[in-house]
Amino acid sequence: MSSSEPAKEVPTDPAIAPGGGEDAAPSKKGAKKAEAKAKKEAEKARKAAEREAAAAAQSSAAAEDLAKENYGSSLPSTKISAPYIHLRDIAEEHVDKVVQLQAWVQNSRAQGGKMMFVELREEGNWAVQGVVAATADGKGVSKQMVKWVGGVSLESFVLVEATVKKPLEPVKSCKVSEYELHLSKIYVIAPAPEKLGITFAVASRAVGRLDEEEVEGVEDLAITEGAPTASLATHLNNPAMHGRAPVSHAIDEVRIAVEDLFCDYLKAQGFKRFHPPSLIGAASEGGANVFKLAYFEKEAYLAQSPQFYKQYQIAAGKKRVFCVGPVFRAENSNTPRHMTEFIGLDMEMEIQEHYHEVMHMLEGVLLHIFRGLAKDYRNEIELIRSVYPSEEFLLPEPGKEVRLTFAEGQALLRAEGPPEFASVTDDEDMSTPQEKALGALVRKKYNTDFYVLDKFPVDARPFYALPDPENAKVTNAYDFMMRGQEILSGGQRVHLPHELEATIRSKGLDPNQPGIKEYVDVFRSVGVPPHGGGGIGLDRVVAWYLNLPTVHLVADYPRTPKRLFP
Amino acid sequence: MSSSEPAKEVPTDPAIAPGGGEDAAPSKKGAKKAEAKAKKEAEKARKAAEREAAAAAQSSAAAEDLAKENYGSSLPSTKISAPYIHLRDIAEEHVDKVVQLQAWVQNSRAQGGKMMFVELREEGNWAVQGVVAATADGKGVSKQMVKWVGGVSLESFVLVEATVKKPLEPVKSCKVSEYELHLSKIYVIAPAPEKLGITFAVASRAVGRLDEEEVEGVEDLAITEGAPTASLATHLNNPAMHGRAPVSHAIDEVRIAVEDLFCDYLKAQGFKRFHPPSLIGAASEGGANVFKLAYFEKEAYLAQSPQFYKQYQIAAGKKRVFCVGPVFRAENSNTPRHMTEFIGLDMEMEIQEHYHEVMHMLEGVLLHIFRGLAKDYRNEIELIRSVYPSEEFLLPEPGKEVRLTFAEGQALLRAEGPPEFASVTDDEDMSTPQEKALGALVRKKYNTDFYVLDKFPVDARPFYALPDPENAKVTNAYDFMMRGQEILSGGQRVHLPHELEATIRSKGLDPNQPGIKEYVDVFRSVGVPPHGGGGIGLDRVVAWYLNLPTVHLVADYPRTPKRLFP
Repeated sequence: MSSSEPAKEVPTDPAIAPGGGEDAAPSKKGAKKAEAKAKKEAEKARKAAEREAAAAAQSSAAAEDLAKENYGSSLPSTKISAPYIHLRDIAEEHVDKVVQLQAWVQNSRAQGGKMMFVELREEGNWAVQGVVAATADGKGVSKQMVKWVGGVSLESFVLVEATVKKPLEPVKSCKVSEYELHLSKIYVIAPAPEKLGITFAVASRAVGRLDEEEVEGVEDLAITEGAPTASLATHLNNPAMHGRAPVSHAIDEVRIAVEDLFCDYLKAQGFKRFHPPSLIGAASEGGANVFKLAYFEKEAYLAQSPQFYKQYQIAAGKKRVFCVGPVFRAENSNTPRHMTEFIGLDMEMEIQEHYHEVMHMLEGVLLHIFRGLAKDYRNEIELIRSVYPSEEFLLPEPGKEVRLTFAEGQALLRAEGPPEFASVTDDEDMSTPQEKALGALVRKKYNTDFYVLDKFPVDARPFYALPDPENAKVTNAYDFMMRGQEILSGGQRVHLPHELEATIRSKGLDPNQPGIKEYVDVFRSVGVPPHGGGGIGLDRVVAWYLNLPTVHLVADYPRTPKRLFP
Repeated sequence: MSSSEPAKEVPTDPAIAPGGGEDAAPSKKGAKKAEAKAKKEAEKARKAAEREAAAAAQSSAAAEDLAKENYGSSLPSTKISAPYIHLRDIAEEHVDKVVQLQAWVQNSRAQGGKMMFVELREEGNWAVQGVVAATADGKGVSKQMVKWVGGVSLESFVLVEATVKKPLEPVKSCKVSEYELHLSKIYVIAPAPEKLGITFAVASRAVGRLDEEEVEGVEDLAITEGAPTASLATHLNNPAMHGRAPVSHAIDEVRIAVEDLFCDYLKAQGFKRFHPPSLIGAASEGGANVFKLAYFEKEAYLAQSPQFYKQYQIAAGKKRVFCVGPVFRAENSNTPRHMTEFIGLDMEMEIQEHYHEVMHMLEGVLLHIFRGLAKDYRNEIELIRSVYPSEEFLLPEPGKEVRLTFAEGQALLRAEGPPEFASVTDDEDMSTPQEKALGALVRKKYNTDFYVLDKFPVDARPFYALPDPENAKVTNAYDFMMRGQEILSGGQRVHLPHELEATIRSKGLDPNQPGIKEYVDVFRSVGVPPHGGGGIGLDRVVAWYLNLPTVHLVADYPRTPKRLFP
């Protein structure tokens, strides 16, 4: 072993990675104390390593390393022939067999001078205990090799040859607890730096501060119940380590499932996927909160929703359509609910007799999602809850779905809500606090975290919402609520051009202004069937379902007014 | 019947809709002749209708209309109780049963004064012949009703009650040829205008001119083998009618299938979906051809590919990932191959031993797509070929996939290609004519339209392409070819930060410049496994497979330097 490779002092608590606490990346300004501490620790470790190295040099003198071909910082010259295995696949049949695998070094811990425990991890949480034990004759595994393994920086990617063994008792700290790997060879494929921006242990905990502001004198790292955490900003600034955390993997799995369950349900109901454009020629929905860009000699805008395009599809004879893709909002809202770019799950369908056909279809798809998660993602949800606690998401019993009209909701708020809502009216939109208060009342009364609020007032809806033919003050439009927060907006659309012109004018807009004219023209150009639909924000469904502190933990690369990186 | 509703004269050839030829929307400038002709036709039709109406008035005098409740331009006051049916579902069990349905009036044709044939169509090509025959006593269906039906403008959306019958002989002009509907009620839900921007018949044919230029004195409509066609611009400017054409539906089905086959294959291989951002903080790949926009106090760019983000996913411990979403190119290229926004199908995966693991995975997914299309989309492909002829897409026999190195491809071109390619070298990228010539040679030699070109020269690849460890002049990177055109670019990526810095510098870039530094930092921050991947343009795969004249027929809403609408 080269003396230029310092060994590391490793804490004995395997739950905390070396340097897992104070080493984790502090915010730029509030970091001095943490940094000083970290330097001190590093220095201590270095000295310990030097002492150890000196002792080793003394004891083994210039003893020949009989295992020097079996480890190293580059790939071996001769290929390993043992079969490749993934940690998630290890089973009884592999016991006493030699295998090879690629994995990250998650942790290492010396046991005397002759043995090293090294935790190896594949995607997500698939970790196993590796054992590197020097043989008596120094062949196969030497003392030098044991020491060298302890010096491999954490989160390095390694190639390993090992024999699968049954440990004396299950290895509680690893997901693969019934087996361990007795390493015979180990090579670094890609080394990690000595100091990580954020350690695996800290990345695996809940985020601390959510805001992106750097506050003078406030340290990034917070001690939450004894364990250090890092701010959301530090997590996001270290995408590789943030993404490696088991909780991140589990949230990803849930998000992927929500999208798949949405698409699969609709496909089974005859919906066809299409792709609306992101670049559009005019700010279609009023012009506020829209990103604008130079487009050759013209200007273009980024679509705020696929609304118009979903309707064009219906006009083009596609009976039922859905789309999944990014939508853009130039809102300067720095809250845990907002992003400037997010993935929308949208659908639109022909109506035969009544717009509740659409409402029930959307209710069906959301219940399918919630039931699918509860059934098949129990492990992921439990893992996420161990980091971000939440109560079980309550669903209505089949056939007992809760559907209130907006007026009924307001009446409930007036009668049983907090005193400040004693005089809410049926004509104004609900505020977020009103929504939350109503959500609490509905939960108490009907034992569900999911319900529908139908017949929104005309003033609370855009021009394409169809007024109720029997009550001109309300629309055939609804919101869906999760834990007291709006998760879906939808309804029946105006499908006759003269009615559309009237609703556009009633909102103070001109049916012939750019961006709106082209839309009305489609309805003027052919007969368009009655239709309706709805749209969901993917990240919000996941965040509200899991009661996460922010949607920024759900999106792969969240975009906010302050964040365009990574 | 109100005399303000003119009846229409309908040509007897059902394949040509009324006004199907000269009525179709001409380009703005070159339209005068067509317009004059159309006016003349319309005037002729109007006069004929007047004559007919006068004759009818004479014969029946002010005879009472005993069927007046059974038709009209708005929905009936009493609901129709017959079960709803979709045209695609009509079967023997429905014969002699009364049903209701919603459909478009595709065509109508009078047979004497007492009978009208009216073609009704649902999504795509699902058309059926409707019969409206006046009863002797004028109850149920009256002569007035028959006439009124003939006056319903084509492409209006109607509600119909009818009895399913077996026709005397199959109705060749309709896809539902074994049944016909004897109408008892018909109401217009949404009327189409008298004059369509483009008729169903013209929309159903191949597009004429592809370019978006308006050429003085050139008419939009071209007569192709006797049948009028409209330009691509006219098609796209009439999205509802363009989309209603059976060929558009069929292309949509193929495009949907390509995306689904891509995703399903990769999911089955353990790939996880993620969503890269469209908004990015710096022009990452050199800065050319990138859209820029104001982003609060900063600037943002639209992503040209998910390349960096796919790699971040690998760094974050996701072994295999894929994504489907829009990418943006600010190229002022007005060709049938280019769009400024298109849907990319991308994947990235860890490599165990050799980058050909990735190449074979991509080969597998493309062959899965091609075989899936050939197996399950025969009807759609045949329909498309009836409009856009193409030769069968030749695939290699299983186990006989064709993989040439770039140098082998150039050698083949030199030896057997056209004389102008007699001195092509191994260090320069191939031009499009070279690619096409090589495609023809490969087809002749190996009987396949699909093959792989591996080991591209370093100069033809971006900085993230890994140089071949055994030959520094070439890379571990490949293109996939379809009918002699590149359809996929991919390869192994540099995964070690110091090597990445070197390749970045070799391209004349600075590893610490904005947009590149953040990328390199991710490789500096952890150990990143060896990995590789590739990306496909969804619309191009479909267009090349079907040999369509332009990718703009595949995208739902194509975006070009000249087109941001609809």
